[in-house]
Amino acid sequence: MPTQFDPPSGTRDFLAAELDARERAFAVIRSVFSRYGFEPLQTPAFERLDVLLGKYGEEGDKLIFKILRRGEHEASGEADLALRYDMTVPLARVAAAYGSQLPSPYKRYVIGPVWRADRPGRGRFREFTQCDLDTLGTTSVLADAEVICAVHDVLSQLGIGDFRFLLNSRHVLAGLLEAFGVPAELGPGVLITLDKLDKLSPAEVTGELAGRGLGRGKAADLVSAMTAPDAAERIRAALKPSDEGAAGLDEVDEVLSLLGSTIPPGRVEFTPRMVRGLSYYTGPIWEVVADGVPGSISSGGRYDRLIGQLGGPDTPGTGGSLGVERILLLLPGAAAAARIRRLDVAVTIMGEEFARRAFELAAEARGAGLRSSIYLGASHKLGRQLKWASDQGARWALIHGPSEQAAGTVTVRDMDTGEQTAVPAAELPSYLADQAVS
Amino acid sequence: MPTQFDPPSGTRDFLAAELDARERAFAVIRSVFSRYGFEPLQTPAFERLDVLLGKYGEEGDKLIFKILRRGEHEASGEADLALRYDMTVPLARVAAAYGSQLPSPYKRYVIGPVWRADRPGRGRFREFTQCDLDTLGTTSVLADAEVICAVHDVLSQLGIGDFRFLLNSRHVLAGLLEAFGVPAELGPGVLITLDKLDKLSPAEVTGELAGRGLGRGKAADLVSAMTAPDAAERIRAALKPSDEGAAGLDEVDEVLSLLGSTIPPGRVEFTPRMVRGLSYYTGPIWEVVADGVPGSISSGGRYDRLIGQLGGPDTPGTGGSLGVERILLLLPGAAAAARIRRLDVAVTIMGEEFARRAFELAAEARGAGLRSSIYLGASHKLGRQLKWASDQGARWALIHGPSEQAAGTVTVRDMDTGEQTAVPAAELPSYLADQAVS
Repeated sequence: MPTQFDPPSGTRDFLAAELDARERAFAVIRSVFSRYGFEPLQTPAFERLDVLLGKYGEEGDKLIFKILRRGEHEASGEADLALRYDMTVPLARVAAAYGSQLPSPYKRYVIGPVWRADRPGRGRFREFTQCDLDTLGTTSVLADAEVICAVHDVLSQLGIGDFRFLLNSRHVLAGLLEAFGVPAELGPGVLITLDKLDKLSPAEVTGELAGRGLGRGKAADLVSAMTAPDAAERIRAALKPSDEGAAGLDEVDEVLSLLGSTIPPGRVEFTPRMVRGLSYYTGPIWEVVADGVPGSISSGGRYDRLIGQLGGPDTPGTGGSLGVERILLLLPGAAAAARIRRLDVAVTIMGEEFARRAFELAAEARGAGLRSSIYLGASHKLGRQLKWASDQGARWALIHGPSEQAAGTVTVRDMDTGEQTAVPAAELPSYLADQAVS
Repeated sequence: MPTQFDPPSGTRDFLAAELDARERAFAVIRSVFSRYGFEPLQTPAFERLDVLLGKYGEEGDKLIFKILRRGEHEASGEADLALRYDMTVPLARVAAAYGSQLPSPYKRYVIGPVWRADRPGRGRFREFTQCDLDTLGTTSVLADAEVICAVHDVLSQLGIGDFRFLLNSRHVLAGLLEAFGVPAELGPGVLITLDKLDKLSPAEVTGELAGRGLGRGKAADLVSAMTAPDAAERIRAALKPSDEGAAGLDEVDEVLSLLGSTIPPGRVEFTPRMVRGLSYYTGPIWEVVADGVPGSISSGGRYDRLIGQLGGPDTPGTGGSLGVERILLLLPGAAAAARIRRLDVAVTIMGEEFARRAFELAAEARGAGLRSSIYLGASHKLGRQLKWASDQGARWALIHGPSEQAAGTVTVRDMDTGEQTAVPAAELPSYLADQAVS
């Protein structure tokens, strides 16, 4: 039941535990991408409305959050700015704005929020994190393979267990239509239906193809070739006579060969039926599926005309996107961190006259690289303060009262065992530093 | 001259070098705050409009970026959401929404963008990063001192050289007005004028006070007490008879005493004229000034009624804000990183038949913890590829062509010296790992 204090529909507040889990995953992603020489980019949360409008189709345009003009223009009810809807249109704008100031090729990654006025639902948000990596300025298939390799490393290092890449090429798809005699005007629809072979039976797909106007015989041939036990061989044989099909096969084989040396065998599969919905791809396309997760957790491909179409320079590109919100759901995450450790060292205060000393002790603990805080409540009772130390998940509580002062010591209480050690005051920093590494 | 490809007015694109410098500073801030037991919070970029409206005064309301309603409601020209204007109203909402689920006290920090439709200018942006830390749920002056201490550590660790804290208390200010017989209705205006003593001459301030309706004699007394060589002593003496003034002095002295043990002497100064513009402060107030920088680079104070006034629970609070955009300008930053090192290892490709091996070599370098990329251009000429390696700031280029293949080696070229070493292929990973740490 939403209350007036909930965040807006489709958005989330992230408190420490969840935010930490997310940030840990993002740190892995940044580290891997950076190790491949991709560099970060950050663009504003909003763009001029005309930069975004018309780039995502009619349906997409409706999902753009538009920002009202300000001041005297507010009453017009018109918008002039809009929240970022994806990371690709801003990339096209940056490529146009900075041109030759960017390295060539320009390899960039981005991790940040995008906003879409979709109907919120289970796992679907209006503010969500998008993570893209792209290489602009080269037509080399090496760049396609490099993107796939980087995504592979991210998924491995995040600890996603069973995942595999489905690899195809737009040229293979075009060759397929040519080889099986699919009329040009039926091509796009036929591909969309073929892509359902992972969900529907061969008979259902054949029926749908016929419904699209493809002859029964051709439809049956096509489906039979794609679903036979030796499908890959049959498709390869069928594609050979088509120039575009043969070129597509070469492209796929080159990617497979490049990845063969760096990705475990079986992780990348040539998947002729895999289409990727978006029409802007021009070469290799791929997606990543994981056991027990419907749909894909990452996808991408080559788009040699898209940046130009989006208002950027006419430059080839290839890239991919990680479905980070879905991927985060696959990680052990918050459950494992049920007990939150907010502090390493909780410093109690045994009376106002000891506050200054407590302040020093906390600083000494921080100096030893430990997270440390003094007790900020009004009570000077030890039991109350140890309860706080325990709530904070602290490993140690420090106690410094009259007897410690007289003895020149600090009492270090192990919060797990309850064991207490009197440590000479001067030795506390090194004592804590030793404990911290053990 | 703005072009159609520039980011919207008042916003910025951050390319790698600048973004890296910013992220390094943010990492220092996060690390220090976390070591004090402050935990991160992230709220959505936008809030419901009614959550924000009326919280920032009339002028503030005008600067809020409002988001148009969507779908059939778009034509109404009305807004229902608005971009975050600061981090405090979202904090109040979170405190109301999560209540006892939050630790008590709730110590949180936040680093993220806020948006204000201000007129853009030198160093003034419409999208800028705000960094706040706050402790809710305790009236203890220890919490005030802790915030100051944490801000001090951040500024030190960022390498800001000459900075100092100006410390005061709202109670001192109230006592001052009482002690010098300032009529209640003139109080706020008198304080605003007194705060100009750092910019105007004593005579000018006296004149302005008189202009506000304060008797010439009282005005002169007040200014003389505040500007005398023994001002601190005279103010202390004047405050003693006032209950509130004496309480304010105690508060200031307690903060000074607590900080005395952890902050270098002279870094915190009792500054009776320092007012802080915002009216919501209720206890200690402070700001940080740095040599050669007009205004303050950080400020904060206690606000025991604000969270309730902003729609949150009635809870005391104290906190501070770092002027990160100003602070970033003080850091060595981009200039020092004029030569960007995008890669550690640049892998050349001496012909298509060596592409797969190049792919492996790049993976081996990454396995050794190095940033590495293969050459993605079309040329197989070594000179061209070494130019690329140099542009990338790479430390080494790897070369593996026919002669290396025959010899079972990889040529490692030091990009600074041009020296080339033939390394047996099997030893490359350990060779690079050794070089990397040396």
